[in-house]
Formats: sequence, structure tokens, C-alpha cells
Amino acid sequence: MRGLHLTADLYQCRCDAHWLTEPQQLGRWSRQAAEAIGLPVERELSCPGAEGGASTALLLPGSHVLLHTWPKERGVMVDVCLSDAQEDLPAKARGLMQALVQRFQPQWTEQRSLDRGGGE
Amino acid sequence: MRGLHLTADLYQCRCDAHWLTEPQQLGRWSRQAAEAIGLPVERELSCPGAEGGASTALLLPGSHVLLHTWPKERGVMVDVCLSDAQEDLPAKARGLMQALVQRFQPQWTEQRSLDRGGGE
Repeated sequence: MRGLHLTADLYQCRCDAHWLTEPQQLGRWSRQAAEAIGLPVERELSCPGAEGGASTALLLPGSHVLLHTWPKERGVMVDVCLSDAQEDLPAKARGLMQALVQRFQPQWTEQRSLDRGGGE
Repeated sequence: MRGLHLTADLYQCRCDAHWLTEPQQLGRWSRQAAEAIGLPVERELSCPGAEGGASTALLLPGSHVLLHTWPKERGVMVDVCLSDAQEDLPAKARGLMQALVQRFQPQWTEQRSLDRGGGE
């Protein structure tokens, strides 16, 4: 049990508004982004979020990708938490986070990196 | 867009093994734990995880709860990320995390707290 968890909070996103309001589109696109980078998505779940936004969860073996959007504020929260069940863990986590962030074209971001597990 | 994100990595869990291996049971129980604390779960998704483990995602408005288990190591990763769409945000986040951690009876844990969003 060991993983890399990247978080990003995106502000003043300049993307087309539908990326912030349409759960199914957000889910489909983020799944494709993960698969394009070699991450096998087991399950995808998308639904309306807070304040007219959208939420998407992707589950992978021991891993997840989460997006929540806030269209009025043009904000997005992103989590990419990958376990070492994935090969090339750091490169894939950072590559996927970069792809997800670029989609929304934020004016600025707050990003953090947490090592998960590995404590035994 | 503002929230509190609690993470916990649990080691040497002494709970019955089925809590670490049965996705549907894990999903049902964690949903009940969230609802018991006054958190309205919109969607639940559970599936087999890494190395015989289980994964569960709960989606709430602008918020999520995630669990991944590793039965061989008797480890669990837990995320409780609640947005201020929830009332009594810090109390509910901490109360739910405490309930989830107790379920697994870990010998020890690593826990962190991140403020999310709020940067505008």
C-alpha cells in the first residue's frame, strides 16, 4: 500500500462553460484522458455537483481520480491518487494531472503532492 | 469553492477480514456511516480494488469519500473531502473520518488535513 496523491484547486478557469456544468461530458473526457496515459479505468461515476457544477469519480485498482466543478466561481478541484499498482506511478500521476488542469485553462492553481501509505 | 480534505492511511487493521475484501459491504456500510452523520450521499460506486482489496467512492454535492483496502497488508486509505455545501463542515468531516477509521481498528494511522479551495 503505497501511492502518490496529487491535488489541484483551479481558479478563474477560461474553458468553455459546458466543461464545468455537464457531468457526462466531464466523465467521458476524464476517462479518456486517463486511458490515453495508460491508466486502466475500472469504473466511472458522474453526477450533478454543488451549485450547478459537475462531479466525476474514476476508480482504478487501489486508485482514484476525482473532479468537482463550481461554474459560478469558475473553479475546479482535482484529485489524482494513484497506488503503485500502476507502473510508472509518478510520471503517470503528473501527466494525468497536467492534462486535466490544461482542459480547464485556469488563471492560477494551488497544487500539492502527498505520499500515501508506505508507512509499514 | 472551499472545503476540508482529511486523509488517513491505516496500518495493521484488526477488523474482520471481510471489511477489507467485499466491495458491496464496504460501500453499503460507508454510505450508512455518512448518512448517519447527516451527509446526503448522491451516488455510491464500489468495485474490486488492488491485490484482492475493495474500493468505494461516495459522491456528495461538491464532495467525496473514498476508501481503498489492501487485505494482505491489512491497510486502508481513506479520503473525506467535504465542501462548504455541507453545513457544520469541520465537525462532519472529522466525525465521519473517526467513524470510518474505527471500523477498521488500525494499530496505527497517518492522518492529514488539507484546506481546499478558498483561494479566490
